[in-house]
Amino acid sequence: MPTDRYAARRKKLLRKLKAEKLGGMLVTNELNVTWLTGFRGDSTWLLISPHDCILISDSRYTTQIENECPGLEMHIRKNTVKISDAAAEVLKSTKIKTLAYESDYVSVKSFDELSSALELVELVPLPDVLVNLRAVKDASEIQEIRDAVEQAERGHAVIRASLLPEQTELEIAHNLEHAMRGFGAVGVAFDPIIAVGTQAALPHARPGNRKIKDDPILLTDWGAESAGGYRSDLTRTYMTGKKLTKKFEKVYQTVLKAQMDSIEQIRPGANCSDIDKIARKVIDDAGFGKYFGHGLGHGIGLNIHENPRFSPNSDHVLEAGMVVTVEPGIYFPDWGGIRIEDDVLVTKDGHEVLTSAPKSLEETLIG
Amino acid sequence: MPTDRYAARRKKLLRKLKAEKLGGMLVTNELNVTWLTGFRGDSTWLLISPHDCILISDSRYTTQIENECPGLEMHIRKNTVKISDAAAEVLKSTKIKTLAYESDYVSVKSFDELSSALELVELVPLPDVLVNLRAVKDASEIQEIRDAVEQAERGHAVIRASLLPEQTELEIAHNLEHAMRGFGAVGVAFDPIIAVGTQAALPHARPGNRKIKDDPILLTDWGAESAGGYRSDLTRTYMTGKKLTKKFEKVYQTVLKAQMDSIEQIRPGANCSDIDKIARKVIDDAGFGKYFGHGLGHGIGLNIHENPRFSPNSDHVLEAGMVVTVEPGIYFPDWGGIRIEDDVLVTKDGHEVLTSAPKSLEETLIG
Repeated sequence: MPTDRYAARRKKLLRKLKAEKLGGMLVTNELNVTWLTGFRGDSTWLLISPHDCILISDSRYTTQIENECPGLEMHIRKNTVKISDAAAEVLKSTKIKTLAYESDYVSVKSFDELSSALELVELVPLPDVLVNLRAVKDASEIQEIRDAVEQAERGHAVIRASLLPEQTELEIAHNLEHAMRGFGAVGVAFDPIIAVGTQAALPHARPGNRKIKDDPILLTDWGAESAGGYRSDLTRTYMTGKKLTKKFEKVYQTVLKAQMDSIEQIRPGANCSDIDKIARKVIDDAGFGKYFGHGLGHGIGLNIHENPRFSPNSDHVLEAGMVVTVEPGIYFPDWGGIRIEDDVLVTKDGHEVLTSAPKSLEETLIG
Repeated sequence: MPTDRYAARRKKLLRKLKAEKLGGMLVTNELNVTWLTGFRGDSTWLLISPHDCILISDSRYTTQIENECPGLEMHIRKNTVKISDAAAEVLKSTKIKTLAYESDYVSVKSFDELSSALELVELVPLPDVLVNLRAVKDASEIQEIRDAVEQAERGHAVIRASLLPEQTELEIAHNLEHAMRGFGAVGVAFDPIIAVGTQAALPHARPGNRKIKDDPILLTDWGAESAGGYRSDLTRTYMTGKKLTKKFEKVYQTVLKAQMDSIEQIRPGANCSDIDKIARKVIDDAGFGKYFGHGLGHGIGLNIHENPRFSPNSDHVLEAGMVVTVEPGIYFPDWGGIRIEDDVLVTKDGHEVLTSAPKSLEETLIG
């Protein structure tokens, strides 16, 4: 049954609420609502307790909720009623006295509005609980991410095979998106980075009018969004010149070693800061430490950046079912940059690399 | 000079801060930072006062800030320093004693982190100031929206001209995006709604596998994102059958009258609730009142939904330079829906409709 997985997720949340002695929770973050109910629209809150599970929405979504969340109770507010007032009304029909809210998401202003609407209920901040629950994926989510990986890799193989010297970064980005859609993606996981030459030194470059022939370095960072809304995230860096240069070779091999050595240590119980440290040490030892300024990677799921995070001061610990990117990079503003990124599932015994696009030094030469 | 417009926007903000007797503001919302500086990345805050204008970012963005915000001061934090701690450090170098923050955006948790980092500075909530400043567009923004309208309309003309009975909603959505990119859009303004038959009764339907031939009603709601990040938003509803039905005709003409009558009254000083009322009355009078459940429209800009909002309880007042959608609709779950949406610029003397895709009853018949 497709609804079972949502019930299972709600059960996990209710267990957390019980442990914190909280009567219920008002879930307002759109992706958290999606994760708990399957509803894919916006402007909709979920009130959940051991006795209640009510979507608070408006008439734009009545039919969609019936379709996407069969059997779930809904409260449809009129467009003259503010959603916080609608929530207050629904709460009166429940016995909830202490209500958790997503303090990592709810703005100070929304909190004030909620506080004054919910006079008789105590609002209790419960930050990060849902993003942490979402960090561990269930079987259906892992399948969605596998789909997103396949869509991304097949699309990328097409643009790699059709590369031409006159193509601009922007054209390639558009072709890539079109190709991924052809393989079933509903869209891009994020705006793809297609970066030629020194643009590749910008970890978050926007595709522009540089042409492939303008510089032999080509960095591609892209992903697909699966039908169910899950995302993949990969990076490959290529040399489109006639041959590999010494500098490209040395930097590439350093990044690749940093990536593979850190992936090697991914397993349940590993500290994310320790995994980050492995990659950082390889890059430091090669003398490039100050050219690797970002964290090693992040979780992926309904959002492109999720928990856990790999960084020097992360306190996250890996668990089976997490899906993370591993993406070290070395960047020189005057030259370009090299980043290699794969998506890795934490398994019971270790890990499985979900992505398989070629990444050996030899395979980077596509001139 | 391309930077002048950002300086002019910052001046407007500083005037508001002065009026509120505030020493400075910490701007953390990504689009607000973009609007004030031209910087298009994320994870970057702006500290602004009469004496300071400093972007607080990390090394991923050093080069991008140099390119996008020439002359602007930046503070690049290490990836071991939290951004709130970096902001606290920067603040010590200033004389700011009372610091405004976006209480409509900053989460309760971020606020707590900020509060403890900024021991000696008083944080003052300043909600909605930036979204309200952003509601009034300058000449360069209006040009960007005009570009986004042109990209959307040309792309749409292509898919309209190439419609086939076997095409699915999803295929049309993909083709539309591809076509808009061909005309210079960097992407879609939002995931397009391409809805056949009863799907058109869902104001926020997701394109799926329904085919054009499955039902004669086809609703298309789409927009483009211009190179500078501004968005257009249109809706057209078509009859792909051999002839117009009585019901389609009656509903269509009602929606069209509601739309045109309300557009007619758009001018500086008009209350958004009054404009909404005009459309609502036309639809009520035709006996369809309970089938129009959403607000009449919203501002567009860097975001797809901005201020001002047209709804029965909106307290917004139109000003010259605002750009709004006007999009009444009538929806029957068992039949489908009809919505017509145009983008309208509020001018000094009245308004200018920026969109021009055909919308007469006769032109809806494309079977």
